[in-house]
Amino acid sequence: MDPTTAPLSGAVDARNTSHFIASGQTALPMDSMGRFWSGENVFSSGNLKLDLLHNFFLECGARANKMRVYEMVDDPTARTMVGYLLVRGGLHVVAYAKALEVLTGVDVKKLLPIPDLSNDAFPEAKKFMENKMHLKLYTFSQDDYTQAGIIWNGDHPETGEPLEVIKGAIPGHTPPDLDEEPQLNAPGADDIDPQMFADIARKLGVKM
Amino acid sequence: MDPTTAPLSGAVDARNTSHFIASGQTALPMDSMGRFWSGENVFSSGNLKLDLLHNFFLECGARANKMRVYEMVDDPTARTMVGYLLVRGGLHVVAYAKALEVLTGVDVKKLLPIPDLSNDAFPEAKKFMENKMHLKLYTFSQDDYTQAGIIWNGDHPETGEPLEVIKGAIPGHTPPDLDEEPQLNAPGADDIDPQMFADIARKLGVKM
Amino acid sequence: MDPTTAPLSGAVDARNTSHFIASGQTALPMDSMGRFWSGENVFSSGNLKLDLLHNFFLECGARANKMRVYEMVDDPTARTMVGYLLVRGGLHVVAYAKALEVLTGVDVKKLLPIPDLSNDAFPEAKKFMENKMHLKLYTFSQDDYTQAGIIWNGDHPETGEPLEVIKGAIPGHTPPDLDEEPQLNAPGADDIDPQMFADIARKLGVKM
Amino acid sequence: MDPTTAPLSGAVDARNTSHFIASGQTALPMDSMGRFWSGENVFSSGNLKLDLLHNFFLECGARANKMRVYEMVDDPTARTMVGYLLVRGGLHVVAYAKALEVLTGVDVKKLLPIPDLSNDAFPEAKKFMENKMHLKLYTFSQDDYTQAGIIWNGDHPETGEPLEVIKGAIPGHTPPDLDEEPQLNAPGADDIDPQMFADIARKLGVKM
Amino acid sequence: MDPTTAPLSGAVDARNTSHFIASGQTALPMDSMGRFWSGENVFSSGNLKLDLLHNFFLECGARANKMRVYEMVDDPTARTMVGYLLVRGGLHVVAYAKALEVLTGVDVKKLLPIPDLSNDAFPEAKKFMENKMHLKLYTFSQDDYTQAGIIWNGDHPETGEPLEVIKGAIPGHTPPDLDEEPQLNAPGADDIDPQMFADIARKLGVKM
Amino acid sequence: MDPTTAPLSGAVDARNTSHFIASGQTALPMDSMGRFWSGENVFSSGNLKLDLLHNFFLECGARANKMRVYEMVDDPTARTMVGYLLVRGGLHVVAYAKALEVLTGVDVKKLLPIPDLSNDAFPEAKKFMENKMHLKLYTFSQDDYTQAGIIWNGDHPETGEPLEVIKGAIPGHTPPDLDEEPQLNAPGADDIDPQMFADIARKLGVKM
Repeated sequence: MDPTTAPLSGAVDARNTSHFIASGQTALPMDSMGRFWSGENVFSSGNLKLDLLHNFFLECGARANKMRVYEMVDDPTARTMVGYLLVRGGLHVVAYAKALEVLTGVDVKKLLPIPDLSNDAFPEAKKFMENKMHLKLYTFSQDDYTQAGIIWNGDHPETGEPLEVIKGAIPGHTPPDLDEEPQLNAPGADDIDPQMFADIARKLGVKM
Repeated sequence: MDPTTAPLSGAVDARNTSHFIASGQTALPMDSMGRFWSGENVFSSGNLKLDLLHNFFLECGARANKMRVYEMVDDPTARTMVGYLLVRGGLHVVAYAKALEVLTGVDVKKLLPIPDLSNDAFPEAKKFMENKMHLKLYTFSQDDYTQAGIIWNGDHPETGEPLEVIKGAIPGHTPPDLDEEPQLNAPGADDIDPQMFADIARKLGVKM
Repeated sequence: MDPTTAPLSGAVDARNTSHFIASGQTALPMDSMGRFWSGENVFSSGNLKLDLLHNFFLECGARANKMRVYEMVDDPTARTMVGYLLVRGGLHVVAYAKALEVLTGVDVKKLLPIPDLSNDAFPEAKKFMENKMHLKLYTFSQDDYTQAGIIWNGDHPETGEPLEVIKGAIPGHTPPDLDEEPQLNAPGADDIDPQMFADIARKLGVKM
Repeated sequence: MDPTTAPLSGAVDARNTSHFIASGQTALPMDSMGRFWSGENVFSSGNLKLDLLHNFFLECGARANKMRVYEMVDDPTARTMVGYLLVRGGLHVVAYAKALEVLTGVDVKKLLPIPDLSNDAFPEAKKFMENKMHLKLYTFSQDDYTQAGIIWNGDHPETGEPLEVIKGAIPGHTPPDLDEEPQLNAPGADDIDPQMFADIARKLGVKM
Repeated sequence: MDPTTAPLSGAVDARNTSHFIASGQTALPMDSMGRFWSGENVFSSGNLKLDLLHNFFLECGARANKMRVYEMVDDPTARTMVGYLLVRGGLHVVAYAKALEVLTGVDVKKLLPIPDLSNDAFPEAKKFMENKMHLKLYTFSQDDYTQAGIIWNGDHPETGEPLEVIKGAIPGHTPPDLDEEPQLNAPGADDIDPQMFADIARKLGVKM
Repeated sequence: MDPTTAPLSGAVDARNTSHFIASGQTALPMDSMGRFWSGENVFSSGNLKLDLLHNFFLECGARANKMRVYEMVDDPTARTMVGYLLVRGGLHVVAYAKALEVLTGVDVKKLLPIPDLSNDAFPEAKKFMENKMHLKLYTFSQDDYTQAGIIWNGDHPETGEPLEVIKGAIPGHTPPDLDEEPQLNAPGADDIDPQMFADIARKLGVKM
């Protein structure tokens, strides 16, 4: 690609230039102002209740911020992503509230709305709820977290549907084979030679 | 408020998205690039002259930056705020210069303009000077800083008007009762129930 | 003071050298590892309940850390300071819990101990409780926060004594006139000339 | 535990006080000087060769630092942990070198020692090599990274033993049930009531 | 200049406001997101090969980023500056590759393109190459780095022209005398009084 | 070197572990608490007087800190280094004071001691003054800063000796050839093969 055509000229006015200058137009662990994620965010006090209280607060705060981001964007992909996060983050709010309730007897859920737990206003979130994504707690392991059902049981506080612990990870999608992006110095197939890969794979009996 | 109308769409192109995503459209302690205030800014060396020299320098630098911000904005509220800061910050420049002069005999004020101390070019600042805001040093306490007059006395170096130490704080204004902002998850009156507050207050004899 | 006697040699092995190198052996806004306070700590979401939940969590976490610091030190001054902070921080835990309870009806206090709210194990804290320091919420103003009694009323959840709102600030102490510290370049009285101050003060009628 | 016995007094002189004040004597994501991990460490340029070169460099640098840490400690647990990291990190050095070799034909391994790849000097590392830990590349998934064998094949450049791709994760160990640590506000069993857990688990048919 | 005309109004929408508020419209050591340079970027491991590998990686990454910046801008001055950096940074890539080759025998250059080393696509870079700027390694000293020729010798790997070590610094240009910028509080000549300078200079025999 | 002898065991209790883990026991750009230098330290306002005032303040503050460091150490090398910095930093204090005086007519030097400018108490500094190091301002260039004499002329305010501008840099010392440090992965001569260097140098006619 001819660089003198300024193929990345749109990036000059982008909110976050790092996504264009330092990465291949993909995500880096920073916020919308370019501030990097920091290990200071990790809270691990050695006191189970305190850690749960922290996480309950954190998920409530994250939910408030997600709502605002939803209200900023109208791109369908952005809204679908935020809708997904609202559903899964809402599940986390409920999970920490239930854990605190089991440990203390306090009906923490009544503290809500901090902000409102309902996703009724977010059509993209509602679609994920039709797929029961607000009910399923995944263990992300075949062997660990087998006792999650001690906390995650009963009905969802808002919809009344039964909560469910799922062994393993959320079924994912095959990541797309992205096109060559010469303007990002991201070489395409002929640079890496798929035939060479195929040859090695065949010799090794590796299934591609 | 219906979030699918993207009521915060204007924030996507805002200079500082944090004011929309992380706060209720109010101020957070960060600069225009989203860099947070840091305790590194505190200078306390144990040497009085050195601390005064630091503060004198700091106020001069802040004044230069305020002038530039004034020249960037034409919103009347923004200009009024900067005008106020120019007047009060200018007072601080003079105060530190006088303190250094008392301690050392050096006529530090002659170092000015670093930048120009005059507010003649800033109409909004001039209005505050008509109210003598450039002359009044507040103690922000009924009992402390009683000796401030040892430094803050004589006439203002630019206008020749008499300097004045005022016991207590600058008279403020009643903060406004902000409207509900549902797009910011900022609940309004019916969420917090003013009647409930009034009832408790009446029982307690609290004046509201 | 003769610097070749290495009068600050003890500071080489001090946990925090900044207190000796950069300040006059006094406090700077940093933690025990020399990390400065940051404006990122400010949480102001625009949602009252969320802010209160944050502060409730924060005070619980701070209390846990204070307890651990108490267990690290045996210096009487350090213990007295931590004891004071345990009493006043414990008051803040109760205050935020009561505020959340008024807004939501949830008995947030039952979440405790996160960690234990009792100061029985800390003799220095108990002394401050004998002075009712765990019961008094100060407004730190003559005119503001007049409605604090709507939240801060009734009895202390642990001791059963009546809670009290106090208009104004905690009575302080006269700060000591520190000695000259030549090893810290902190000049003493003859550098600043008290007679000169006295003369100016007399002329101005300033009471010293 | 009686806090007036200063049960954490040893922490006053600890290198990193955060592990005692802010966490339950466990690990937080910071280095030995208390500097937190930052997202700035993530390198994702959109150019595969450049990313591999970064990772090759990174693993070489990490290996140098691990060697130095080994030379600082003589605690058997610390040495075993560093020995494990030397073996696994050494495997990563080889993996990135092989990937670059496949893509470019350059025998990157010849750049070594940067530093020396041999673990002969580290008895604890040698034990892990007897268990073939330097040969096994894990996919940490049942379904992903099926093509890892295209890179990870042939013999180990130092020992000549055959390299092996293992589907799934490294077999772990059951995490220990840590004792109550009252000096860390880490409540023990009677605070969380194992009987309550057991009852809920039995009702739910959860295996504990 | 009359500040009420908002002479800096363009800066409100500038990517980086610091260049207008905190500096005189010149450069500060920060990136396009306002993140300051940090000493963390310094890599000095005590191991020569590791340091060279770091620098080789660093220059390759910097080259990728420069290419992207070139593709973002179409201002001739910006492109000329980036073109210059591409040529000189490309020289550094080759220099570190050659140093590693001498030390290890590995033909590191074959790792390229990471990204492509050719400047053919960048007309502004080509102009600097016509001046042999891709061939000349400067010692920036009359006396130091006399052995640089041990590494920097032979022909350029892309153009085949002979490499050259130049004793001393790149010939520079006389920095321009910038105009007064009253909107930036940058005083002009009459504030500093050139006559006064000339008088002192004459008395001292200083050549101006 | 056998790592199981823990040859770096002394570093476990070192103030700054980075110098052992991340570097070859040499210096990295960080302070005694491991905080890295930051570009935030650069002050360049576009206003010459303001920049000079900043630098004058900065040098005064640095001098105070150097004095304290001197008082912390008794190692002769450390004291010699601090003594050198006291002399050269004191020269900078005078230089900025003189520049401000020329521009404003204010006798800034009278602000001193902030702290005391005298080096009489520091024997190691006195030795450097015997070599006139407090009088010589270097241009660090053959061609630039030719007008420095406009500011740097007359006599030293403390000793009365004549100030002198020196074209070029301070005469340095040949950096020592450090021994191999295997415990730091710092390879020695046989790894880099001096004969190979000598051969290349001879062929190239490079003088070593």
